[in-house]
Amino acid sequence: MKYGRKRRGVFPLEADIVVRGCLILPMIGGRVISSGLLAIKDHMIAYAGQESDAPRFQADKFLDGHAKLALPGFVNCHTHAAMSILRGIAEDQELDRWLKETIWPLEAKLKPEDVYHGTLLSCLEMIKSGTTCFSDMYFHEGMVAKAVEESGLRAVLASGIIEAGNSERGTKMLKESIRIAKKYHGYAGGRITTQIGPHTAYTCGLELLRKARQAASSMGIGVHIHLAESKDSSRLVKEKYGRGEVELLSDEGFLGPDVLAAHCVHLSREDIALLAKHDVKVAYNPVSDMKLASGIPRVKEFLEAGMTVGLGTDGPASNNSLDAFETMKIAALLQKILYMDPTVLPAGKVLEMATIDGARALRIDQTVGSLETGKRADLILIDVKKPHLTPMHDPYASLVYSARGSDVDTTIVDGKILMENRKVTALDEDEVVKKGRETALDLVSR
Amino acid sequence: MKYGRKRRGVFPLEADIVVRGCLILPMIGGRVISSGLLAIKDHMIAYAGQESDAPRFQADKFLDGHAKLALPGFVNCHTHAAMSILRGIAEDQELDRWLKETIWPLEAKLKPEDVYHGTLLSCLEMIKSGTTCFSDMYFHEGMVAKAVEESGLRAVLASGIIEAGNSERGTKMLKESIRIAKKYHGYAGGRITTQIGPHTAYTCGLELLRKARQAASSMGIGVHIHLAESKDSSRLVKEKYGRGEVELLSDEGFLGPDVLAAHCVHLSREDIALLAKHDVKVAYNPVSDMKLASGIPRVKEFLEAGMTVGLGTDGPASNNSLDAFETMKIAALLQKILYMDPTVLPAGKVLEMATIDGARALRIDQTVGSLETGKRADLILIDVKKPHLTPMHDPYASLVYSARGSDVDTTIVDGKILMENRKVTALDEDEVVKKGRETALDLVSR
Repeated sequence: MKYGRKRRGVFPLEADIVVRGCLILPMIGGRVISSGLLAIKDHMIAYAGQESDAPRFQADKFLDGHAKLALPGFVNCHTHAAMSILRGIAEDQELDRWLKETIWPLEAKLKPEDVYHGTLLSCLEMIKSGTTCFSDMYFHEGMVAKAVEESGLRAVLASGIIEAGNSERGTKMLKESIRIAKKYHGYAGGRITTQIGPHTAYTCGLELLRKARQAASSMGIGVHIHLAESKDSSRLVKEKYGRGEVELLSDEGFLGPDVLAAHCVHLSREDIALLAKHDVKVAYNPVSDMKLASGIPRVKEFLEAGMTVGLGTDGPASNNSLDAFETMKIAALLQKILYMDPTVLPAGKVLEMATIDGARALRIDQTVGSLETGKRADLILIDVKKPHLTPMHDPYASLVYSARGSDVDTTIVDGKILMENRKVTALDEDEVVKKGRETALDLVSR
Repeated sequence: MKYGRKRRGVFPLEADIVVRGCLILPMIGGRVISSGLLAIKDHMIAYAGQESDAPRFQADKFLDGHAKLALPGFVNCHTHAAMSILRGIAEDQELDRWLKETIWPLEAKLKPEDVYHGTLLSCLEMIKSGTTCFSDMYFHEGMVAKAVEESGLRAVLASGIIEAGNSERGTKMLKESIRIAKKYHGYAGGRITTQIGPHTAYTCGLELLRKARQAASSMGIGVHIHLAESKDSSRLVKEKYGRGEVELLSDEGFLGPDVLAAHCVHLSREDIALLAKHDVKVAYNPVSDMKLASGIPRVKEFLEAGMTVGLGTDGPASNNSLDAFETMKIAALLQKILYMDPTVLPAGKVLEMATIDGARALRIDQTVGSLETGKRADLILIDVKKPHLTPMHDPYASLVYSARGSDVDTTIVDGKILMENRKVTALDEDEVVKKGRETALDLVSR
């Protein structure tokens, strides 16, 4: 589709939604469009550029973009969305104690409908804070798909596989992961794609990891795995196999460009080189890495090695928020302090990680992640007329260092408005919050 | 004032404002009041406790506290509020370059009215994000006082003194700092108190530091100083005096319980012991310490040594936000990752640092910092009916790890409502934002 200047003013082009007068950060090549126009037609971006260069549009809906900033919706590369109902339940504890005394016993009692209500609560939070796509690994993942479908969001889903020494259990969970991957790949009008979700190299045996890898390859989908999250997890693998996690997975032929590795905290230089060689994608989760005191991933070096790094929040129980703005800011701050260098991970790069690089990490960058003609229309409008966003000397810095989720005015996914003027149209907000609270209270009382 | 049960239902007591049905965190001894009532009379808290135990009140104004959480307003212990107009102007740069190429040249062009508009913009941002008191060190501090007076906030002001090898300049700035301290101590109905503001031990000579100390002591007010912020600043002092900053200031009789030391990043164990011995108060600025890659203060050890630590945002140009919620979360996360221990700095302690400990650090804890009968009524109401605050298994964790400035529904300072239902009543929001933007644009074009 191409609209030349000559078509201006002749016959107006048809669009579903047109946004006029906004500042656009398309997240391609550092472009900033100061007086922009966005047109959406048939779920897709029909135009994203200067308003003065745009053809004339007639649309079902016009949105006023003045004092608004438009950019691609955020891509959350790693979460366990349903864990919102466990948010705040056991705070400031050792990871081992947190998992064994609280999280795992409660997860054992989880019913499918708990996962549904928890995920829907997280979807609502993400719509309200500008995340338009998330990558999820959890249980009862069919219920996650249901919540995603209803919410209007985009998602990449993986049913988690935890063998934990029980091969029968491992086989069963792999089977479920494959079933989910097959059933929901392309689901919800294509908004949902899937991955296979082996939990880690220390909770899944080699045989199971091989089978998971084969299943993913045969289906042409990716793999979502936790990698080198904590010192303990890395130690366990080394003790068991005499090799580090990355070396082990590389030896087993597990690594590849379709592998999404969450965390990547405890890595050697050789590990980083190996991951880069295999083009493994990283989900960087700065908040949970700090909150659980897991450690600090060496993201600057990942980027220097040419790796693709997206941002993740991790589950709401170890964050305890799904706000991509907060994640962006802390992502930058944590790298600056690690390297004792304020120039590391500048705002523009962080914003790429939260959008187009996240889409690359999930291998959906042909579809979303930037505002380009022909891509699906996943975008957000930020209301910049706020004291904390004044002045705006630098829109990238404003978004990364000053803005927060509540500055999102409008959220659009796949060309559909999910929130406008902070009013969520896709879900009944009061009902979702009420059900989320009731589900949480019911779960802890079981 | 004491209201016994017997008075219930006889003659109602008079109040200016009554909040009914809220969850109250008074920030005294870990109390949580689930169905609380707050009464405000003559700028003060007349009652803060269970609604069922409360006397009957008649009031000019009743606020509905259902689904709201009441707590003391936040105390920001270290900022340069007027620097909001420089927010985002030179991002992701080396500190030295940032200061020398951008900040200092622009500050040299600052007019008094720039400081006024910049501070007012920051006051608006603080009202909207729940900060009720801030400690400021800057220039044209009379303009800061004017903005504080108009905004309705509480503040502790210090006019900064930078000698930088020019003793004439140093003497002049000390004189101005004393003038400001005298003129504005007790100003704005007592909402403003003052301190003397020698910038650092490397930008002020020993003679000037002594005079500043003497001036503060003779006026019975405190001193606000930057201490051991960066490796470079610590090195400069050591090179000049053959002693570290803390040792130097201790030897000179500078240290005492009325000293507010901002940053305290590069300290030895002996330094910490010395500061603790002198009961020096610390302003911990986690965001700017990370953003400028200054380093990480060892706050866990400060607390173990019995020191009082408040939270600061630092100026909006090196943060770039004044959101106390963000500061609380990052304050906790940064200590956890420094000590590689998720139990360090739990949510309850962080919330104390942001409220009562901050008031102690500014030596106004007899007046504010907790919700107790007889204290001035500086408090905020949080709207907890939000997806990201659902469920609320632990109100402390919800506030520190999940909430953000935009969740503040109502802000009250000195018994006066500055914001209600997110509508700022104390200032003309549009006008303040407009003037802030214009001032920033004008400044950079000079």
